[in-house]
Amino acid sequence: MTVPKTALKVGLIGTGYMGKCHALAYRNVKAIFGDVPDLGLEMLCELPLDKAASFADQFGFSRHTDDWKALVNDPAIDIVSITTPNKFHKEMALDAIKAGKHVWCEKPLALTLEDAIEMTETAEKSGVKTQVGYNYLKNPIIQEAKRLIEEGAIGRLLHFRGVVDEDYQADPNLPWTWRATKADAGLGTLGDLGCHLISVAYELVGPIESLIADMQTVYPTRPMPDGNGVGNVENEDIASALLRFENGITGTFSSSRSAWGRKNHLIWEIHGDKGMLSFTQERFNELKLYQNEGPACGQGFKTILAGPTHAPYQNFCPAAGHGLGFNELKVIELAGFLQAIAGDEAAQPDFKAALEFEKVIHAIARASDNGNREVINP
Amino acid sequence: MTVPKTALKVGLIGTGYMGKCHALAYRNVKAIFGDVPDLGLEMLCELPLDKAASFADQFGFSRHTDDWKALVNDPAIDIVSITTPNKFHKEMALDAIKAGKHVWCEKPLALTLEDAIEMTETAEKSGVKTQVGYNYLKNPIIQEAKRLIEEGAIGRLLHFRGVVDEDYQADPNLPWTWRATKADAGLGTLGDLGCHLISVAYELVGPIESLIADMQTVYPTRPMPDGNGVGNVENEDIASALLRFENGITGTFSSSRSAWGRKNHLIWEIHGDKGMLSFTQERFNELKLYQNEGPACGQGFKTILAGPTHAPYQNFCPAAGHGLGFNELKVIELAGFLQAIAGDEAAQPDFKAALEFEKVIHAIARASDNGNREVINP
Amino acid sequence: MTVPKTALKVGLIGTGYMGKCHALAYRNVKAIFGDVPDLGLEMLCELPLDKAASFADQFGFSRHTDDWKALVNDPAIDIVSITTPNKFHKEMALDAIKAGKHVWCEKPLALTLEDAIEMTETAEKSGVKTQVGYNYLKNPIIQEAKRLIEEGAIGRLLHFRGVVDEDYQADPNLPWTWRATKADAGLGTLGDLGCHLISVAYELVGPIESLIADMQTVYPTRPMPDGNGVGNVENEDIASALLRFENGITGTFSSSRSAWGRKNHLIWEIHGDKGMLSFTQERFNELKLYQNEGPACGQGFKTILAGPTHAPYQNFCPAAGHGLGFNELKVIELAGFLQAIAGDEAAQPDFKAALEFEKVIHAIARASDNGNREVINP
Amino acid sequence: MTVPKTALKVGLIGTGYMGKCHALAYRNVKAIFGDVPDLGLEMLCELPLDKAASFADQFGFSRHTDDWKALVNDPAIDIVSITTPNKFHKEMALDAIKAGKHVWCEKPLALTLEDAIEMTETAEKSGVKTQVGYNYLKNPIIQEAKRLIEEGAIGRLLHFRGVVDEDYQADPNLPWTWRATKADAGLGTLGDLGCHLISVAYELVGPIESLIADMQTVYPTRPMPDGNGVGNVENEDIASALLRFENGITGTFSSSRSAWGRKNHLIWEIHGDKGMLSFTQERFNELKLYQNEGPACGQGFKTILAGPTHAPYQNFCPAAGHGLGFNELKVIELAGFLQAIAGDEAAQPDFKAALEFEKVIHAIARASDNGNREVINP
Repeated sequence: MTVPKTALKVGLIGTGYMGKCHALAYRNVKAIFGDVPDLGLEMLCELPLDKAASFADQFGFSRHTDDWKALVNDPAIDIVSITTPNKFHKEMALDAIKAGKHVWCEKPLALTLEDAIEMTETAEKSGVKTQVGYNYLKNPIIQEAKRLIEEGAIGRLLHFRGVVDEDYQADPNLPWTWRATKADAGLGTLGDLGCHLISVAYELVGPIESLIADMQTVYPTRPMPDGNGVGNVENEDIASALLRFENGITGTFSSSRSAWGRKNHLIWEIHGDKGMLSFTQERFNELKLYQNEGPACGQGFKTILAGPTHAPYQNFCPAAGHGLGFNELKVIELAGFLQAIAGDEAAQPDFKAALEFEKVIHAIARASDNGNREVINP
Repeated sequence: MTVPKTALKVGLIGTGYMGKCHALAYRNVKAIFGDVPDLGLEMLCELPLDKAASFADQFGFSRHTDDWKALVNDPAIDIVSITTPNKFHKEMALDAIKAGKHVWCEKPLALTLEDAIEMTETAEKSGVKTQVGYNYLKNPIIQEAKRLIEEGAIGRLLHFRGVVDEDYQADPNLPWTWRATKADAGLGTLGDLGCHLISVAYELVGPIESLIADMQTVYPTRPMPDGNGVGNVENEDIASALLRFENGITGTFSSSRSAWGRKNHLIWEIHGDKGMLSFTQERFNELKLYQNEGPACGQGFKTILAGPTHAPYQNFCPAAGHGLGFNELKVIELAGFLQAIAGDEAAQPDFKAALEFEKVIHAIARASDNGNREVINP
Repeated sequence: MTVPKTALKVGLIGTGYMGKCHALAYRNVKAIFGDVPDLGLEMLCELPLDKAASFADQFGFSRHTDDWKALVNDPAIDIVSITTPNKFHKEMALDAIKAGKHVWCEKPLALTLEDAIEMTETAEKSGVKTQVGYNYLKNPIIQEAKRLIEEGAIGRLLHFRGVVDEDYQADPNLPWTWRATKADAGLGTLGDLGCHLISVAYELVGPIESLIADMQTVYPTRPMPDGNGVGNVENEDIASALLRFENGITGTFSSSRSAWGRKNHLIWEIHGDKGMLSFTQERFNELKLYQNEGPACGQGFKTILAGPTHAPYQNFCPAAGHGLGFNELKVIELAGFLQAIAGDEAAQPDFKAALEFEKVIHAIARASDNGNREVINP
Repeated sequence: MTVPKTALKVGLIGTGYMGKCHALAYRNVKAIFGDVPDLGLEMLCELPLDKAASFADQFGFSRHTDDWKALVNDPAIDIVSITTPNKFHKEMALDAIKAGKHVWCEKPLALTLEDAIEMTETAEKSGVKTQVGYNYLKNPIIQEAKRLIEEGAIGRLLHFRGVVDEDYQADPNLPWTWRATKADAGLGTLGDLGCHLISVAYELVGPIESLIADMQTVYPTRPMPDGNGVGNVENEDIASALLRFENGITGTFSSSRSAWGRKNHLIWEIHGDKGMLSFTQERFNELKLYQNEGPACGQGFKTILAGPTHAPYQNFCPAAGHGLGFNELKVIELAGFLQAIAGDEAAQPDFKAALEFEKVIHAIARASDNGNREVINP
């Protein structure tokens, strides 16, 4: 991986789950990859101001602010990371692009497809580079799967199956929050989890042509936090779809945010006419491969452990089977973004590519609502 | 399990995969369960006659024939096992019922839904007992799953997911056979595999109300056995559906007969508001259970190994984890059939219950063809 | 597998865990394998007489008795199965051999090495065939492992590791029984479990030359069943040894009867200079194989599911991955015994071969007691 | 975890596998944990000088040198990391301690036990803090295992089993290197891998009292790199031992550096009178727990996924099952070292504690050589 040598200054908005993850990536990317520019951790934005100060100290940022508009318009800053709750992505991204900053935005782009389209159109017209945080694509073993598919290890593709489940909304006694509203959260499991699975489907199989779908809110109300009555849950807990890809194959999609025991259960399998690949994110340093090769008595699924022969694993560790962590995928993602900034290619996925993923989750919601086959790009 | 004491004479039609499996069950059921009637292995039917003679000797049947009509009408015979290719089930079953025999028929009942309905109506009007070979339901660990669900171990049910895949049609170079025709084979993966999964869904969750579906023939032609050209494949290799159950929950169904590496990959998971159950048939002596009990730091999926506390495992072996085999599930199935014959209850599943499973697979085919939501029992 | 055509009459002593297992094997072997002689289930022995009558009826034996001496001396009987508690094996086997019967005896042969030697010497001088119930060797996937080793799939052997654990003595509150005494039970975990693991080591690696060992009784006393005080446990709960094989490789041996959660945890791995094999009995239809072949990025452990290409699996089922059961291994064992009876070869393992396994478990006990390296055949 | 607030200056010797791992830890520890002092990455030592310059730039160190003596004696430096080949540890550590630096040294301490004792005695007499790189102890799920044992989740401990295998010396065609010599490498698999397993045994079970052992060099010679003949391998490829712990329980130890397919196969299980724990490092975010609780029909091994309830996982990620990476364990290790430096407690393990682990691996080598029981602390 060749990455640029020009120093770049970073502004980070948000210090939660993904904010910290971005901060760690910025701190590590050069130490891991070597051949990247010096990054200046210039400014951090959080609310309130003393929290911003504290996190700037912890993460090693030079300056801090409680005003994100100040950050995105600060002339010293080259790259803006947006890691706030999803409903703020659009305004921040538009302003940052307008200010000429490269933008690394967490997924999904926006609460509505219209907003995501607007963000993408703005980005496309600008000269800046963008990237959306589909970090699971950066897993070396996923890239190995892609390489295996491309070299024909499983032959012609026949079918795709994918599931992405977690249990953060499995408990019926969890109180109502803004996550239950369309206004503040948009989609439910589709936006939080489903788009990750779609991103993998696009990476390994290709674009989706159309789909039919069904979804359900299994907890239509939740107790209000103050103990007084219940609030309505406006978005879906579970969503399922039957996919047709542009290349002619079919597939299935399933997602639930209410699946007890599933912590990061993004699993998929790809059927080919010579073999099969399968994967589960909870053991994301492993890939399973079956090939119809040699006598039947010796065939079986092979468990391949990620190692230094699966680039860029070797930048993290020279020994196979020692295991990358979730946070380290983000470092790979950042290295790709820096490479894109230095070169002529788009980052993968940029706003434009990510918009395609988000078209699919919104199409699933529409298809479920209207009972029709929805075409992704009519 | 209480089973009857009256001696019964058996006629077996067919000596292939399932014919042998029935023969072993007849030979073993009393030795395993004790409290069942003596069975007389009276007559075996196969073509040609010398093959019938040979298998009668091997399986321990007193008489043999190449004329199934002679068998089903033989006055000495009480029970008829039908294990021939599916297209013969209907005529054999109707004649056997007409002759007053109890009928144990392999799945699916028939190639078309109309035929299955006719068989069921005839059976319902007769006084005989029937049973259809949905052997996976008889697995002690599946019955333990049912018991756990009924006692509330995973709370209110929220969702079902099921897959049933094999690879017997995965090789694109396999020659064309009668299996590819609607006239001789009826449905494809739905009839061979899919109905098994539906039987499990009914056993553990309940009846399906309606569904939408999509299916595909990934190998639309196959080379003719004589090397001259190709033949058309008329039935589906892959079928997928989104299910709504009568109890209000949703689910997914997937099946492929062209899934490399899958040998008996019938897997399912059932989501509840207090936990989850999951299972895979390739390790069918294991059940996985997650429960939201105790502190989060100690929660996880528990792997329960089948043992003597999961009736009727103890009839086979007093030691847990030693493992039942595929053939042994058929012995349990037979014990249930003998119990039904001796008593007032129907066997599980009899023709009537099995018809419900088969309505679903035909509805999947229709929904895929017409693009509409199909209701199982309009 | 070629097996004889002469009819043989069977006498079975014992109707417990292994008695039932033998009975099922006798009932099934011809139906499974075809090419074996008719077996007459002639006489069954159990105490008291009415229990003998009841089990003779259940298992399909023509006659019954409560006098094992009558059975072993009955002129009609050709084969005697000995499935009683271990302390009775010697006297029954010696008498049966003296009476000219072929003897199928459960493992271990005897409580002491001296008794096992006497049994073996008597058997060797006689003209009868013997077999000892090391059923795990008969697993098709174990034989596939043997074939793979012989064809060089893992290259020159380097090392062996084996464990065999169960939890039937894990509960400290289990009352004292005769199993705790040297007089009635002989060895502890070594006799119950350990000899099975040694049998696998001999089958796949070869004879053991010498060893050092350490063992422990972790529950030195157990509560008496009547609630009055405790009884001493005289034999070992846990035994461990470091092995040197005659072919120059080393290995490890571990066994516990007090290992919570382990139901049939007989696991082993064999290291070679080109690859590795590993296995666990709780999933005994699976074999794992790693081979140093092809580029490192594609290497991994392959999980091979037992199927019809692993003889004689195909006699039970034509479909891979459907799974044999514990009881079915005994049918394979019996087929081999019948083949030995009909031919010139010894059964595997006969008393002579089994004696070698038992020399090892007694050597482990001695080495642990005296702290020295014990040579198996000095 | 409370860690100090005083700024500390770091000197790092070595930039290989472990050198990079230390560098990443230094870069991340504050961003991860917050409550730690500012660290100054002051000086990096590597050979030759231009490589030192390059890595200083990559890892973010202010100064660089090719003279480790200059580094350990530099007055600005507070902490010295020693990550060079093992044979250099002693001299560097002694000089650093003499210069009053806190020393974080990779394992093992030294090639010989005598050298490790000298290092420990020197460290004990000094006022500096030391830590040895037994990073696997820092895994949150290992600490959860420790907590479970201490709270009695598996009852009284009965037995320990441990294996640590890799395959970096499995290929017989690998050329001879200095790793094969006692002078430059000391022990073989015991020093590279075995001491890690011993560290876990001490952490979870306690000190070892004595042992017997056997080891083997399975490739006694290796081809010379220049293609001319072979060189002798002086240290062991495989080592095995039977352990007795000071608390009276027994255990087994196995290690191989020539085990094909094993990439980081450090596995262990701990048997208790109420349950069992088991673990495998290749899936180090998982812990398996069996408890004899509730009815037998519901018992099984539970797979617990690491999550934010297993401190300090929550400092890395708020979501369970997302997975820490190998490098992140080193960050936890460093946080503990900084805490020790700021407080009165020793780091875990410091030289003194690590010496106990290394006594065991040397005792295994001696016991194998002389055939006697070796006592760890006679």
